[in-house]
Amino acid sequence: MKVSDIARLIGASVNGNAEAEITGIGKIEDAKPGEITFLANPKYQRYFETTRASAVIVSEDFKSKRTDLTLLRAKDPYVAFVFALKALIPPPEPLSAGVSPVSYISPKAVVGKDVRVGAFVCILDNAKIGNGVKISHGSVVGEDVEIGENSLIYPNVTIYQGCKLGKNVTIHSGTVIGSDGFGFAPKEDGTYEKIPQLGIVVIEDDVEIGSNCSVDRATFGETRICRGVKIDNLVQIAHNVVIGDNTVIAGQSGIAGSSKIGKNCVLAGQVAIVGHLEIADHTTVAGKSGVSKSITEPGKIFFGIPVKEMHEARRIEGAMRMLPKIIEEFSELQHKVEKLINKE
Amino acid sequence: MKVSDIARLIGASVNGNAEAEITGIGKIEDAKPGEITFLANPKYQRYFETTRASAVIVSEDFKSKRTDLTLLRAKDPYVAFVFALKALIPPPEPLSAGVSPVSYISPKAVVGKDVRVGAFVCILDNAKIGNGVKISHGSVVGEDVEIGENSLIYPNVTIYQGCKLGKNVTIHSGTVIGSDGFGFAPKEDGTYEKIPQLGIVVIEDDVEIGSNCSVDRATFGETRICRGVKIDNLVQIAHNVVIGDNTVIAGQSGIAGSSKIGKNCVLAGQVAIVGHLEIADHTTVAGKSGVSKSITEPGKIFFGIPVKEMHEARRIEGAMRMLPKIIEEFSELQHKVEKLINKE
Amino acid sequence: MKVSDIARLIGASVNGNAEAEITGIGKIEDAKPGEITFLANPKYQRYFETTRASAVIVSEDFKSKRTDLTLLRAKDPYVAFVFALKALIPPPEPLSAGVSPVSYISPKAVVGKDVRVGAFVCILDNAKIGNGVKISHGSVVGEDVEIGENSLIYPNVTIYQGCKLGKNVTIHSGTVIGSDGFGFAPKEDGTYEKIPQLGIVVIEDDVEIGSNCSVDRATFGETRICRGVKIDNLVQIAHNVVIGDNTVIAGQSGIAGSSKIGKNCVLAGQVAIVGHLEIADHTTVAGKSGVSKSITEPGKIFFGIPVKEMHEARRIEGAMRMLPKIIEEFSELQHKVEKLINKE
Repeated sequence: MKVSDIARLIGASVNGNAEAEITGIGKIEDAKPGEITFLANPKYQRYFETTRASAVIVSEDFKSKRTDLTLLRAKDPYVAFVFALKALIPPPEPLSAGVSPVSYISPKAVVGKDVRVGAFVCILDNAKIGNGVKISHGSVVGEDVEIGENSLIYPNVTIYQGCKLGKNVTIHSGTVIGSDGFGFAPKEDGTYEKIPQLGIVVIEDDVEIGSNCSVDRATFGETRICRGVKIDNLVQIAHNVVIGDNTVIAGQSGIAGSSKIGKNCVLAGQVAIVGHLEIADHTTVAGKSGVSKSITEPGKIFFGIPVKEMHEARRIEGAMRMLPKIIEEFSELQHKVEKLINKE
Repeated sequence: MKVSDIARLIGASVNGNAEAEITGIGKIEDAKPGEITFLANPKYQRYFETTRASAVIVSEDFKSKRTDLTLLRAKDPYVAFVFALKALIPPPEPLSAGVSPVSYISPKAVVGKDVRVGAFVCILDNAKIGNGVKISHGSVVGEDVEIGENSLIYPNVTIYQGCKLGKNVTIHSGTVIGSDGFGFAPKEDGTYEKIPQLGIVVIEDDVEIGSNCSVDRATFGETRICRGVKIDNLVQIAHNVVIGDNTVIAGQSGIAGSSKIGKNCVLAGQVAIVGHLEIADHTTVAGKSGVSKSITEPGKIFFGIPVKEMHEARRIEGAMRMLPKIIEEFSELQHKVEKLINKE
Repeated sequence: MKVSDIARLIGASVNGNAEAEITGIGKIEDAKPGEITFLANPKYQRYFETTRASAVIVSEDFKSKRTDLTLLRAKDPYVAFVFALKALIPPPEPLSAGVSPVSYISPKAVVGKDVRVGAFVCILDNAKIGNGVKISHGSVVGEDVEIGENSLIYPNVTIYQGCKLGKNVTIHSGTVIGSDGFGFAPKEDGTYEKIPQLGIVVIEDDVEIGSNCSVDRATFGETRICRGVKIDNLVQIAHNVVIGDNTVIAGQSGIAGSSKIGKNCVLAGQVAIVGHLEIADHTTVAGKSGVSKSITEPGKIFFGIPVKEMHEARRIEGAMRMLPKIIEEFSELQHKVEKLINKE
C-alpha cells in the first residue's frame, strides 16, 4: 500500500515520499524500512531520531529535523495508526462464509443477506437477523431476538428470548444476554417467591461486550447498553441497568439492579456499583472501588470502598500508613501531658 | 381474570367489586383502569390517593378513605402481587415442547415424561431426567447426572458427571456445575500434583442459580446447595462448600473451599468468604466484604475487608475520614506540649 | 493392590507387611482395615495412635510406637498419598472413546491418534490436535489452533483462532481462550476506535485452567501462561499478560493488560493486578488485594488495597480498629493541654 493511500484512509497530510510502498507496521523503536509507525506519546520522541521506519504518523504540529523520513500528519496519531493497522493487517475472518448445514434455523426466523452461521448454532422462532450478521459455532439466538446489520456473535454465546441488538455489535464467547434479573420476594417462612423477569435487554449500535459477561433482562421494560459502550470480560450487568453512550467498563466489574451509569464514564476493573444509583457523565471510578451513593457532579475521579474523591482517598491512605506511628507518639504525648498536670 | 379469581389465587380477601375484570398490571403511579397494582412500601402511599387502577393489593390492616377502589387484603401485599403477576402475565415458555431431533441422548439415559430437550443438547450415559424437565439448547448433562422433576436448564449449561439436581431447580446459561475443585499438592521442585476431585455437587429442590456461575465438585463427598438457595450471576462456589437453606448470594461473590454458610443468610455482591469457615444462620454480609474468620453469632450484619460488625465498620470509616485533619492537629498539639515542657 | 505395589508407585519404603492387600483409602480418623491413609499434618498425630487403617503413609523420619501398623515412608506423605489415591480410585473417564458422529471436524484439520471428540464439537480449518487429546461436547476449537498431546478440554470451551496449547493441558467448561484483548483508542468525539487484537494465547505444558475463565489474546505477540500454572474459576487474564511457571491463581482474580507475574507466585481469591506491572517470583498476594505497583523483591507476602507487606497491613488494620477510641482520647488531650496553656 502506498503512503498516499494510507494517508487518504486515515485523513492525514503527507510530508515526503507519498509514493513509497508500505508493507508492514512496527513499533517506533523496532520498525524496519518499508514499515510505518507512529509517535503519539512524547516519552517515545527520542526513538524518532533513530527510527528506521519509512513513514511515521505524527501530530499536525510536530516539528521534525529529519528530512529522510516521510511524515503523515494526523489530528490524533494513535487513532490514525489504528486505522492504518486495520488496513495493512486485516484481522483473520472470525467466521467463514455461508450457513453451516449442521445448524438449526427455525423456519419462522427471518434471516438477512450475507449472513454467516456456524456449526451447531440455534436460531429460534421469529428471530430477525440483519444483513451481514455473523453468528458463530454453538451460539443460541432465542425466540423474537433481533440482531442488527453486521453484528458479530462469537462462539457459545447465549441470547435469551426477546432481546434486541443493534448494528455493528460484537459479543464474545460465553457471554449471556438476557438471563433473568435477580428478583425474589421474601416470604414469611424464610423462603423466596421468584419475581418473573418480563423485560428484555437492548444493546444499541457499536457496542462490544467481552467474554463470559452476564447481562440480565429487566423485570419490566429494558436493561439498556447504549451506543458505543465497551465492556470487558466477566462483567455483571443486573436488571434494569442503563449504561450511557461510550462508557467503558473493565473486567470483573458489576453494576447492581436499576443503576444508571452516565455517558463517557470509565469503570476500572473489579468495581462495584450498588443498585438504584445514578452516576454522572464522565465519571471515572478506579479499580476495586465500591460506589454506594449516587455521583451527581460529572467529570470526577473516585477510589475506595466506599469511594471518596481520589485526592481525598489518597490523603486518607497516606494518613493510614502513618497511623501506627502516630498512635505510639500519641501514647507518649499522653504521658507527657499527665506529667505536666501532676507537676502543677 | 376476575378480581375474585385473583383473590382466591393469592389468598386475599376482597373489599369492593369482586366481579371486576382485570386485564393487566401496573405500578401504582401509572396503572390504568382495568389494571391491578399493589401498595407495600409506605413511601408509595401518596400515590394511593390518586391511582387509577381498578384494584389494589394492600396489607390486611390497611386503612383507605377511597370507596371507589377495590381492595385485595393480603398478609404480604408484595408477595401476593408477585403471584397475581404470574397469573396475569405468564412469562414466555423458555423452551418449546418436544425433543429436538438434533440432540444427542444416550440410549442408556433414563428420560421421564413431558421432558423437553433443545437442539444440540447432550445427555450422556445413565443420566436420569425427571418428568417435566426442560434442557435447553447446547447444554451438556454428564454421565450419571440426576435432574429432578420440573427443573429448567437454560442454554449452554454444563453439568459434569455424577452431579445431582433436585426438583424445580433453575440453572441459567453458561453456568458450570461440577467442575474440578481447585486442589493441588505442592511438590519439592515447585510444581504441583493434581489432587483428583472424586466427589459431586448436590443441588436441592427449589434452587435457582444465575448465569456464568461455577460450582465445583467436592474432593470427596459433596458440595451442597441446600433447598431454596438463590444465587446470582458469576458466583464461585468452591469444593466441599455447603450453602444452607434459603441463603441468597448476589453477583460475583465467591465462597472458598469447605466453608459452610448457614441458613437464610444474605451475601451481597462481590463478597469473598475464606475457606474452612462456618457462617451462622441469618448472617448478612454487605457488598465487597471479605470474611476471614468464622461467624458464630446469628443474625448480625458485617462489612469490610476483613469484616467488622456494621456499626463498628461505620465508626472506623468515619474516623478514617477525619484522620488527615487529626494528624495535622496532633502535630500542633505535640508542639504545644513541647513548648509547655520547655517553659518549665 | 499390595502395599509393595503402592510403595513402588509412590517411591516409599515399607516397614511392616508389604504383602497386605489395600482395597481403599480413608481419613486417618475414619479409615477401616484394608484401607491406606496418611499423616502429614502434626495436628492429626493423635489419630495415629488409634487408627484402624492397615497402612499409613508417613514422613521418612516419623517415629512410631505401634508395631501392628504397616508404614510407608515417603519424602512428602501428602503428595505420596495423592499418587496412591490416583492409583486406587481412578477418577471416571471425562469423555468416552471415539469421535462422535455428531461433531464437525474440518477436513483441513490434522487430528492425531486416540483422539476423543464429543458431540457437537467443532474443530475448524488447520487445527492440529495431538495424540490422546480429548475434546468434550460443545467445545469449539478455532482455525489454526494447536493442542498438544493428552490435553483435556471439558464441554462448552471456546478456543479462538490461532491459540496454542501444550501437552497435558486441562481446560474446564465455559472457559474462553483467545477472546479479544480490551483495546480501544479514544477519539475526539468521545467514541472509541477498536484496536485489532492480532496476537494469540500460548498455554504451556501441564497448565490447568478452571471453569468460566477468560484469557484474552495479545494485541501483538502473545499472552502466555507458562508451564505448570494452575488457575481456578472465573479468572480474567488480559492481553499480553505473562504468568510464570507454577504460579497458582485462585478464583475470581484478574490480571490487567501486559502485566508479568513471576514464577511460583500465589494469588489468592478476588485479587486484582493493575496493568503493566512486574511481580517478582515467589510473591504471595492475600485474598481481595489490589496490586498497583510492581513488586521487585521476591518471596514476600502482601495484603490490602493498595497492597502493603502483610505485617504492615496487619499493624495498620490493628491501628484502624483503635482509631475511634484514639480520636476521643485525642479530643480530651487537646482540652487538657488548652487548660494547661490557659493556666500559665
